[in-house]
Amino acid sequence: MTSRQTTRLADGRELIYFDAAPGIDRTTPDRRTDLPATSTTSQVRWDPLFHTHTVIADHRQTRTYRPPADLCPLCPSRNGMQTEIPAPDYEVAVFENRFPAFSLQAAETVPIVTEAPFRSAPGLGRCEVVCFTSEHTGSFSSLTPRQARTVIDAWADRTQDLGSRPSIAYVFCFENRGEEIGVTLTHPHGQIYGYPFIPPRFFNAAQTSRRYRQRTGDCLQCVLLRAELAEGKRIVATSERWVAYVPFAARWPYEVRIVPLAHVPDLSAVGDAERADLADMYLDVLRRFDGLFDTPTPYIASWQQAPSHDHRDDWHLAAEVLTIRRAPGKLKHLAGSESAAAVWINDVSPETAAARLRGEDSS
Amino acid sequence: MTSRQTTRLADGRELIYFDAAPGIDRTTPDRRTDLPATSTTSQVRWDPLFHTHTVIADHRQTRTYRPPADLCPLCPSRNGMQTEIPAPDYEVAVFENRFPAFSLQAAETVPIVTEAPFRSAPGLGRCEVVCFTSEHTGSFSSLTPRQARTVIDAWADRTQDLGSRPSIAYVFCFENRGEEIGVTLTHPHGQIYGYPFIPPRFFNAAQTSRRYRQRTGDCLQCVLLRAELAEGKRIVATSERWVAYVPFAARWPYEVRIVPLAHVPDLSAVGDAERADLADMYLDVLRRFDGLFDTPTPYIASWQQAPSHDHRDDWHLAAEVLTIRRAPGKLKHLAGSESAAAVWINDVSPETAAARLRGEDSS
Repeated sequence: MTSRQTTRLADGRELIYFDAAPGIDRTTPDRRTDLPATSTTSQVRWDPLFHTHTVIADHRQTRTYRPPADLCPLCPSRNGMQTEIPAPDYEVAVFENRFPAFSLQAAETVPIVTEAPFRSAPGLGRCEVVCFTSEHTGSFSSLTPRQARTVIDAWADRTQDLGSRPSIAYVFCFENRGEEIGVTLTHPHGQIYGYPFIPPRFFNAAQTSRRYRQRTGDCLQCVLLRAELAEGKRIVATSERWVAYVPFAARWPYEVRIVPLAHVPDLSAVGDAERADLADMYLDVLRRFDGLFDTPTPYIASWQQAPSHDHRDDWHLAAEVLTIRRAPGKLKHLAGSESAAAVWINDVSPETAAARLRGEDSS
Repeated sequence: MTSRQTTRLADGRELIYFDAAPGIDRTTPDRRTDLPATSTTSQVRWDPLFHTHTVIADHRQTRTYRPPADLCPLCPSRNGMQTEIPAPDYEVAVFENRFPAFSLQAAETVPIVTEAPFRSAPGLGRCEVVCFTSEHTGSFSSLTPRQARTVIDAWADRTQDLGSRPSIAYVFCFENRGEEIGVTLTHPHGQIYGYPFIPPRFFNAAQTSRRYRQRTGDCLQCVLLRAELAEGKRIVATSERWVAYVPFAARWPYEVRIVPLAHVPDLSAVGDAERADLADMYLDVLRRFDGLFDTPTPYIASWQQAPSHDHRDDWHLAAEVLTIRRAPGKLKHLAGSESAAAVWINDVSPETAAARLRGEDSS
């Protein structure tokens, strides 16, 4: 049973320690006296033509950019160096981002604009940093299953906590890994965004899932999972309770969907045995990604969870792991077709990708 | 009046020369005897969960990747070196891509799959390369207005020609510039994709434009243009017939929409005087982008045209120019929020971007 202890940083931001066992003292105070209060200028602006929100967050231009290892803000505070985590050690730590794209305080500082055709609202929400381990080097895939399980419990906790707030419409847990993805801190960590709206990709999926259920009485994700298992050639790995496969219409050179056999809306609804099984499966998939090339694979791993307040019965949880590397030394860039027209062109067939991830074909 | 001459390459692909004046001999034959026939494996696969098409094009993995300058396939054929363009010189040349993501021949080689929930179709369509100049170095912004005008005429010609084919639903003219965008050939060139479906971004805009017109009787793009002109602070440049502005909800650090005052659906409907004016305006905007940083700005420039067969009355033409560079040496990467959730977070406010593009603020 993962233990949870909450404290506050010197500027008032929340910090939560997650430990595999209770009874560890995590009360070390944040001794920084010169920490300026965080503030946000975030606005959510509406584009009426393309029917989408954009977040304008110009205070983020000055965020921490590739600090040297001895100034890593995600390491524990040791030897007089005060970091974002006051304790001298930790297992998993989650804290509010100092340069947030969304903040529940934004309403106090950011005006509302409603002069047609222009509409914007304060960037309400929450951005959290999830430190997967106190070890500065390494990666998620080098965690033990027990460590991975503590991260899963932290994600589930944050999903439930943030999702219970009325202004947060969607809780998005994700990890960006690798300089090629734009990661500026190498310490193994992920992020959680509590969006004030349902992101367009998940809004689409919620709509299609609802329509599918209304039409057929069935869950589309369940149907896809059964079809992939029957066809077999895009399956990457299976366990008692989870299946990892490359989707039929994968957008990225290597893309894997990790889906529970049980129809559950989000991580907070995943039971104890399923979480233990997931820890093994998730590590297995990340290690397969790292085995693709001679150098660590840049990836984005994220959880497609049900929206916090809507569509919860229709939704079926999944993780998506993708890399932008299409071959050694070559990246899939998002150029005109993807960035300007939103049409993905994938140079690696999903069947080939699955075979390589299964280790069958190293050509 | 731009002159147009059509020929065929050794493997049967179409090549079209566009010249500012008629009477230039462009009949030099393609002397390559060892050119293998192009073939495509492109499939358009449907993702029923996210309600979108993905193009699987695994034959493209072997495409030409950063050749040395003396092997540039886009230079004219000279000194015994046979390139994609047989003539010893040219002004603007357009030819079918040798590694196409879409091909009108795909129906002959690619099967149709319709086993629910899996659906895929051959990648019908057309991919063309547009060489802006025979000069290997330089960029679009270093063209003369007359050269730029010939490119505009070529785009208009291709829009009309490709758009008249029943299997092409959308003609997309674009330029990717810079290694950071993934460009593998440095010779100044752009591309044209004739998609067999309307790209999701433009499908959205077509739907919102139609609904807006049904509700108000007005054109949303016209309304946005008037509002931007009235507000003024996001205007970058104006001419007699065109306006360049940073959209209120811009997704990219620097993003400009170039819109004609006249309500026209696509480039083929733009009149002679508007085209001359556009050549100046387009060059002006590209030069402003190149003035942002000390090194050439990586950009994507694209034309948002009406779908070929639908929504033509609702649509109002625009160009979009964007860069992924957010500061000297720093790129806007598409990480978890953008790539996995489709939520763009922009660190540069549109008002700041417009001021910098106007040259008002060099900080």
